[in-house]
Amino acid sequence: MNRNELLDRIKPETDRIDQAMRQDLATLGDTTLFEIINYACFNGGKRFRPLLCVLAGRLCGRPDDDIYRLAIAFEYLHAATLLHDDVVDKADQRRGRPSANTVWGNTAAILTGDYLHARSLFLLGDLGRGRCLEIICRTTAAMVEGELLQMRNARNFNQSEADYFTVITRKSALLIAAVCEIGAIYGRGGPEQTAALRAYGLNLGIAFQIVDDLLDYLGDSKNTGKAVGNDFCECKMTLPLIYTLAHAENRDRNFLLALLAGPVETKMAALDEAREMLTRYGGFAYARQQAEQYVGLALASLDVFQEKQQEPERNILAGLAHYVLTRNK
Amino acid sequence: MNRNELLDRIKPETDRIDQAMRQDLATLGDTTLFEIINYACFNGGKRFRPLLCVLAGRLCGRPDDDIYRLAIAFEYLHAATLLHDDVVDKADQRRGRPSANTVWGNTAAILTGDYLHARSLFLLGDLGRGRCLEIICRTTAAMVEGELLQMRNARNFNQSEADYFTVITRKSALLIAAVCEIGAIYGRGGPEQTAALRAYGLNLGIAFQIVDDLLDYLGDSKNTGKAVGNDFCECKMTLPLIYTLAHAENRDRNFLLALLAGPVETKMAALDEAREMLTRYGGFAYARQQAEQYVGLALASLDVFQEKQQEPERNILAGLAHYVLTRNK
Repeated sequence: MNRNELLDRIKPETDRIDQAMRQDLATLGDTTLFEIINYACFNGGKRFRPLLCVLAGRLCGRPDDDIYRLAIAFEYLHAATLLHDDVVDKADQRRGRPSANTVWGNTAAILTGDYLHARSLFLLGDLGRGRCLEIICRTTAAMVEGELLQMRNARNFNQSEADYFTVITRKSALLIAAVCEIGAIYGRGGPEQTAALRAYGLNLGIAFQIVDDLLDYLGDSKNTGKAVGNDFCECKMTLPLIYTLAHAENRDRNFLLALLAGPVETKMAALDEAREMLTRYGGFAYARQQAEQYVGLALASLDVFQEKQQEPERNILAGLAHYVLTRNK
Repeated sequence: MNRNELLDRIKPETDRIDQAMRQDLATLGDTTLFEIINYACFNGGKRFRPLLCVLAGRLCGRPDDDIYRLAIAFEYLHAATLLHDDVVDKADQRRGRPSANTVWGNTAAILTGDYLHARSLFLLGDLGRGRCLEIICRTTAAMVEGELLQMRNARNFNQSEADYFTVITRKSALLIAAVCEIGAIYGRGGPEQTAALRAYGLNLGIAFQIVDDLLDYLGDSKNTGKAVGNDFCECKMTLPLIYTLAHAENRDRNFLLALLAGPVETKMAALDEAREMLTRYGGFAYARQQAEQYVGLALASLDVFQEKQQEPERNILAGLAHYVLTRNK
């Protein structure tokens, strides 16, 4: 399935997801809360998480239309995380626009995140089956733990690949795993199907985050809406950098470590040089190869869905996995 | 029921609530998250909200022991709100100790609040009946709206009593109403009983907040663990001040308005004088009288519980309502 074909296939689904969100938000009336959520949730997001939920559900059975309402819970949860992240990171931009905390202030951003969080869990509790709430609660705990781990390691330039994978699994991949698992449960998938979709989500989530971290170095800010080199300037230890530090000659390693320990301006000024060094030591190539490997695992998990009528959804999920590797934003 | 008798009666309940919390938190293992929650939740809190939930449930029927687990959801929700509030208000103290954001930083405090929020809704979804999640989600939305309203009105010194009651209803009272309502639902109370307990909670919550705002001016910081005069220094328009501004002679009114518009140091220096003025115009007496009136409404709502076997819980709930008026912390 090529990219345009994929986009054509998912368009009706994301439209229905958007429609379910608009309907759900209409209950808020004409309030500041509505205004902020509207701003935070309709900003060109790809609806990646709700889409996965709907497709996982449909791959397992014939879920009713409430699956769209269930699915938006994950967009809310994601948006709540981003609202809080931007406050915590003092980020003034999000997707090329001023962040909500810039427009309405920290308090409003935190509170809106709290509301979306509550609404998300309400929808999951209302529509999902018993286990769903437990899964998402465990996932939230893991996400929080992932953030805390990352904070503890903030000035530790000696992180291992294992540390990196632990953080991205908790911070990003477990939610995507939960999204797919809950979709499968809603679609009344059997244990094998549910486990397969969870594995798909987990591996896809890991690959997704590796690519995200690659785009931070190599992306075009016109596409990503983020400044290039952010992670490096903030000393965020992502895979290309960890790999390079582990494989570089002493002189180059010391150069990078001195940059990391120094002020942010020096890092910004030396960004091209650092990037060149990461390229030279194969840090980017290694990260990409890892992402490909995880996409391979995600694709392999779909093997349990062999029936003819499962083909359309399986193809889209496979297409999305490939897309993760080629996306530029 | 005198104060000591009341405390004796509630002690076994709050002990069981604490026990349920410790059991629930044990699943977190030895993590930073556990450490922060422990710090934030075991700090001499009165367990007011979970206690009301248990009592409301028991007044309606014979709820099973899971009501303690359900009840701690409200302590978590309350703790989550305080964690986020302290970040938003840049508060460095909470109950006479450094606040969690002071000890672990803003990010950790926000994330821990997020976890507690998720856990709270998980417990409500797991144990409460369908409507419970909806009630609490609406309550969260109202709390957020209340905070936002208060923010919009931050530099408006011309607020009315109605504005004040709208804010405290949304920010504090609706949660206490929800706590009592959900306890009643869990205890399988009928519609009349459930509505009565909701009304009890709502009126008690309003009285509770009026007294809280009185203590901010008149309390002893050794008891309350908060600096006296905080609200005035932060230009928070609470009932004694609103009443005084509405009834003061022009000269005094202008004096207060100039103070409010001026720097915080001037307000601190003039705190005694302002307090004297609020006393002179009857601002404190009026607020106290309002609190008494709401406690009266709370007590009247308990009238539907006339059966002999309802007496013990009804007496404690009545005792708690009286306690709200006499508390000094």
